[in-house]
Amino acid sequence: MTNGIKKIALLTGGGDCPGLNAVIRAVTKSAILNYGYEVIGYKFGYRGLYNNDFIPLNLSTVSGLLSKGGTILYSSNKDNLFDYAVEENGVNIKKDVSDIAVENLKKEGVDVLIVIGGDGTLTSARDFARKGVNVIGVPKTIDNDLGSTDITFGFNTSLEVATEALDRLHTTAESHHRIMILEVMGRNAGFIALESGIAGSASVILLPEIPYDINKIAEKIEERKKNGKLFTIIVAAEGAKPKNGEVMVAKIVADSPDPIRLGGIGNKIAADLEKIVKEREVRCTVLGHIQRGGTTCTFDRILSTRYGVAAVELINEGKFGSMVCLKGNDITYDSLENVIGNNKKVDPNGELVTIAKKIGISFAD
Amino acid sequence: MTNGIKKIALLTGGGDCPGLNAVIRAVTKSAILNYGYEVIGYKFGYRGLYNNDFIPLNLSTVSGLLSKGGTILYSSNKDNLFDYAVEENGVNIKKDVSDIAVENLKKEGVDVLIVIGGDGTLTSARDFARKGVNVIGVPKTIDNDLGSTDITFGFNTSLEVATEALDRLHTTAESHHRIMILEVMGRNAGFIALESGIAGSASVILLPEIPYDINKIAEKIEERKKNGKLFTIIVAAEGAKPKNGEVMVAKIVADSPDPIRLGGIGNKIAADLEKIVKEREVRCTVLGHIQRGGTTCTFDRILSTRYGVAAVELINEGKFGSMVCLKGNDITYDSLENVIGNNKKVDPNGELVTIAKKIGISFAD
Amino acid sequence: MTNGIKKIALLTGGGDCPGLNAVIRAVTKSAILNYGYEVIGYKFGYRGLYNNDFIPLNLSTVSGLLSKGGTILYSSNKDNLFDYAVEENGVNIKKDVSDIAVENLKKEGVDVLIVIGGDGTLTSARDFARKGVNVIGVPKTIDNDLGSTDITFGFNTSLEVATEALDRLHTTAESHHRIMILEVMGRNAGFIALESGIAGSASVILLPEIPYDINKIAEKIEERKKNGKLFTIIVAAEGAKPKNGEVMVAKIVADSPDPIRLGGIGNKIAADLEKIVKEREVRCTVLGHIQRGGTTCTFDRILSTRYGVAAVELINEGKFGSMVCLKGNDITYDSLENVIGNNKKVDPNGELVTIAKKIGISFAD
Amino acid sequence: MTNGIKKIALLTGGGDCPGLNAVIRAVTKSAILNYGYEVIGYKFGYRGLYNNDFIPLNLSTVSGLLSKGGTILYSSNKDNLFDYAVEENGVNIKKDVSDIAVENLKKEGVDVLIVIGGDGTLTSARDFARKGVNVIGVPKTIDNDLGSTDITFGFNTSLEVATEALDRLHTTAESHHRIMILEVMGRNAGFIALESGIAGSASVILLPEIPYDINKIAEKIEERKKNGKLFTIIVAAEGAKPKNGEVMVAKIVADSPDPIRLGGIGNKIAADLEKIVKEREVRCTVLGHIQRGGTTCTFDRILSTRYGVAAVELINEGKFGSMVCLKGNDITYDSLENVIGNNKKVDPNGELVTIAKKIGISFAD
Repeated sequence: MTNGIKKIALLTGGGDCPGLNAVIRAVTKSAILNYGYEVIGYKFGYRGLYNNDFIPLNLSTVSGLLSKGGTILYSSNKDNLFDYAVEENGVNIKKDVSDIAVENLKKEGVDVLIVIGGDGTLTSARDFARKGVNVIGVPKTIDNDLGSTDITFGFNTSLEVATEALDRLHTTAESHHRIMILEVMGRNAGFIALESGIAGSASVILLPEIPYDINKIAEKIEERKKNGKLFTIIVAAEGAKPKNGEVMVAKIVADSPDPIRLGGIGNKIAADLEKIVKEREVRCTVLGHIQRGGTTCTFDRILSTRYGVAAVELINEGKFGSMVCLKGNDITYDSLENVIGNNKKVDPNGELVTIAKKIGISFAD
Repeated sequence: MTNGIKKIALLTGGGDCPGLNAVIRAVTKSAILNYGYEVIGYKFGYRGLYNNDFIPLNLSTVSGLLSKGGTILYSSNKDNLFDYAVEENGVNIKKDVSDIAVENLKKEGVDVLIVIGGDGTLTSARDFARKGVNVIGVPKTIDNDLGSTDITFGFNTSLEVATEALDRLHTTAESHHRIMILEVMGRNAGFIALESGIAGSASVILLPEIPYDINKIAEKIEERKKNGKLFTIIVAAEGAKPKNGEVMVAKIVADSPDPIRLGGIGNKIAADLEKIVKEREVRCTVLGHIQRGGTTCTFDRILSTRYGVAAVELINEGKFGSMVCLKGNDITYDSLENVIGNNKKVDPNGELVTIAKKIGISFAD
Repeated sequence: MTNGIKKIALLTGGGDCPGLNAVIRAVTKSAILNYGYEVIGYKFGYRGLYNNDFIPLNLSTVSGLLSKGGTILYSSNKDNLFDYAVEENGVNIKKDVSDIAVENLKKEGVDVLIVIGGDGTLTSARDFARKGVNVIGVPKTIDNDLGSTDITFGFNTSLEVATEALDRLHTTAESHHRIMILEVMGRNAGFIALESGIAGSASVILLPEIPYDINKIAEKIEERKKNGKLFTIIVAAEGAKPKNGEVMVAKIVADSPDPIRLGGIGNKIAADLEKIVKEREVRCTVLGHIQRGGTTCTFDRILSTRYGVAAVELINEGKFGSMVCLKGNDITYDSLENVIGNNKKVDPNGELVTIAKKIGISFAD
Repeated sequence: MTNGIKKIALLTGGGDCPGLNAVIRAVTKSAILNYGYEVIGYKFGYRGLYNNDFIPLNLSTVSGLLSKGGTILYSSNKDNLFDYAVEENGVNIKKDVSDIAVENLKKEGVDVLIVIGGDGTLTSARDFARKGVNVIGVPKTIDNDLGSTDITFGFNTSLEVATEALDRLHTTAESHHRIMILEVMGRNAGFIALESGIAGSASVILLPEIPYDINKIAEKIEERKKNGKLFTIIVAAEGAKPKNGEVMVAKIVADSPDPIRLGGIGNKIAADLEKIVKEREVRCTVLGHIQRGGTTCTFDRILSTRYGVAAVELINEGKFGSMVCLKGNDITYDSLENVIGNNKKVDPNGELVTIAKKIGISFAD
């Protein structure tokens, strides 16, 4: 406690992600065992900070958390205390309630706030840092599109789920000579589609970063047929889009007479392809939420642990306003100011796309 | 070769299913090693029989097949040689071409035809038996709804996939206090939903056999909330239907302006529930084809092997026109005449539904 | 509570086994939700009953237990209250302390004791029944060798672990043209070796029930070589024994100069085979404790749930002194008096051994 | 074919490793699709090169190989053509037969030899490069101890197997309050033990690089007991050694009266600990060959593919005598002269050991 820090708080924000609990565990263990910090966890992300709703975290609370998906602190998806929905005089308005959060931290004697989250959550973290709160960020994104860090936890678990799904689709596609499409996560960045496509032996990979031409997909199917391969597996990021077309993220239309799910790029491609590739069936599977839950994979358990310990080290060194990150094999850190607004995308000319093309994978570009 | 049998043929029909290859392997090994039969496999189910398109099967062809999903003989979904689509004089008509199949069997000197398939495929098998062909059936159905047999291969692999998906959804549902729906296979029979629901700790299970009341689902969600459980997992068979409502199997509407997937009971329930349970998000994942592919599970490898060997024993004993089946722990057989038309359904008052209710699972009835 | 039952107690005894927690969960949920029984759990098996060391069990305590291996009540391997090690006057003696257990049950107002365990644990359960305690047994044995029931939970999870190990050994054996032995559990009964051997495509299966001839193993290896298969996978139950030889269960000899593990049938076979099959390496892997821990498989989650609910039904019906069991597909029960002393063994002429032989698997007999 | 290269050859040497087949596939696809090279594969590593025993590799031969463990080219463990066991005049001698290999390459018109292997295999590759052969190396080592590259394929698959084993051991250890030891691979380098220990929540990790004090292990067990944790999981690399003691790799002693396996550090530690920690059982599981076979994990499929494509690029660029490697996130290359003799070891003061210590893991040093 050389730096006067006595108490730290944690919160998790945004969509859940395998490894959140492992970070909570590592922060708590490292903080208590090495520096004697007191640790608390706000529940439901920033909402808990606003409501001063928290639980104490100790060695016993975090026992058994390493491999458990989800977050014991719960999460909320969209709460932004700088533009927060409140009711005033019976009217729902949005206002900046960040001062209440700062007061709550003071009231509880919290010296440092560790924020585990993605783009939105970390933007608020930066804004709290600007207000003078001692903040440390930990990057979380299934899509792996956060700036300043090479990889974030959850991404590899997600990849394994998507790859196993592709393995399973292969046997059906092969037995029935079908075209099978797997739609995976990735609204703005196609890392999951790209890497699971390589690992799961897809023939076509469709990414937000490389608009596709439906006829190029049909050409690939035809080319495979000529080589005796009567099935084709396609992986599409949910944000994949046709050249001259638009992104078509699925939406639920509850009030239509025959409701329900409209759109979704995977099903659109299936419908479009069936018109071109007439003699064979095209089927789409949307992997959905299965990608972001469940047991955390080996890689993510280790990465989350490294991040958690590193966050506590940053506290000890007083490097506030920064986020832990992974550069190559090394855990390091960057300023939250640098992180925000610098989201990553798949480089259409990068090594992974290039090697995929070299082994014959088409991006339909 | 005491019974004059010298050559047998195999074919696989209908949707693919983990264990098909294991049956092919067991038949081939057992036929060759014990009785010296020659074995061939028709490709693409009955279509191959019609086209006389087959491959020889020997110990080397079936090596390594035990755990491999799909079928090396390929399959076709809907071909019925007793009502087969052919072109005659430039017109597409349907006619009975079964005599051509019988001739092909004679021409190749095939003494017995082993047919591995579900309801449709086995109906044709029975019809060939009525025409005097020596037929042995092997039951195949992911949904486990074939009559005369307690379990068929593929069902347990499918259960494992669905259960793992439920495990994964749990962490997200719990972290976000969400209502999550998993739609699994089962158009007419809800065995997959029922058993994966029990194994995957669902709170609500919706089956074709027990029409549901949407308000009863909402009540269950409310009851859980009172007990401090702010999330709820629902498993719905694709054939689940509301009381006073209709089955709503998903369909692709390619020509709609904003295409694509219409309906699907899981998404319908999600939309309907969101209107009732206002404060929380409801999300649906459709498991789809992932359920029927991939590595065959331990149970199904053993069951498929038992079926394959038993089919060859039936040949040796001359018990044609019958299907191998599992009764309790015992492999036995039944007449194809008995099998067809006697599909199974979940018994709403049976033991599994009863124990599910005893541990608090709701069927929303 | 029509039968006057108000409070029931649970204990788990013997080696741990996937599914124990699922039984505890099902008993607790079913007892509370349907009959309003109070439920407690004694810790460390009979030792807790002797020490009156227990915890209350309610819906909250058992939440999340369905898939979790092990037992939250802990277990002890060898404690027998009818012949219990105690210290009296500074001397360690063994005496019958079962009366103390009976008194503890009375003192706590426990009306029925549910005992989940194997042969040893259930023998004591029977003895308590003879003393007038209302006892219900639930069968537990990884080896699946308990009498009166076709299958017990844990067995299928164990099979899956052993089968996956065999899948992994295949790639190494094949790449290096090696003979690989996997030693699995099964001191007196070879069910795990038999079924994992079939599911994992072993060429030789060695069981306690079928003494082996080392030369027959070598012959099988030679036969495979002639057919172009230059590797061989052998599964051996730990209780496998040579003809004219003895069981050689591994033992730890701590005091030897170069310690440690002596014996173990897998390593013995490896050593013996290397002398005969000279040109190739023989390697043994002992699967060990990995077989009995970890996430409970789908099948075992369902079976454990059925057992737990059925045990509570037996209480409600007053059928004390009995054990729940599975016969074919049906949950039923048998008298503990019948269960004890009737352990099962693999039938050397039974269906599974026969089909294994029909597909070319050697038992080296 | 701008550089005159027309034909390339591949061989795999040393112990098998998940990812070998994926490299073979990537090399073949990339070589044929992009440069039109002809590709052959020598069987059994260098032995095949000596015997001129090879198979052609084309798009069809490598289809389906991505996820398959092992090597379709087979491997041999110890063959060194520069010191090769041959029979001359009825006497077994060792001699340099590398000229025969060079002649075979010339005879077949092989322009470049790609060698996939570990330390020993790549040493020979370097020696062939010194003789003027165009050689490209691809690093392979389960233990991840090869110099010049951060990670090699196979390592992460191995980690996943070891971590899953630790997950399984946890439930048993916890239920029985046991001390459980898992012995994993790593004779000279402890990377598998270190990373699986962190991912599998071990309390003690024992590495070749950090000699252990048995009393420090006992102290950790005691410390956990004081904190209410009555079980302890220990991971030991097979090359772990006591301070002032010696490495004790297991050996098979076939001729002892009560054979078989002597030594093995895991069992030694178990025996030693039981003398100190008297009241509780200590059990050791040796993971063995299961660590190096089976389905290749997602990470390794991608890495192997990157290596395979990169090796072909090095050929195209004429960078012979070099090995592909991974530095941070980038695929690059190094001279084989630099690689050999520069094996990596775990840094006792490196980040991973440090973070492990920060979360309370003991190295018993």
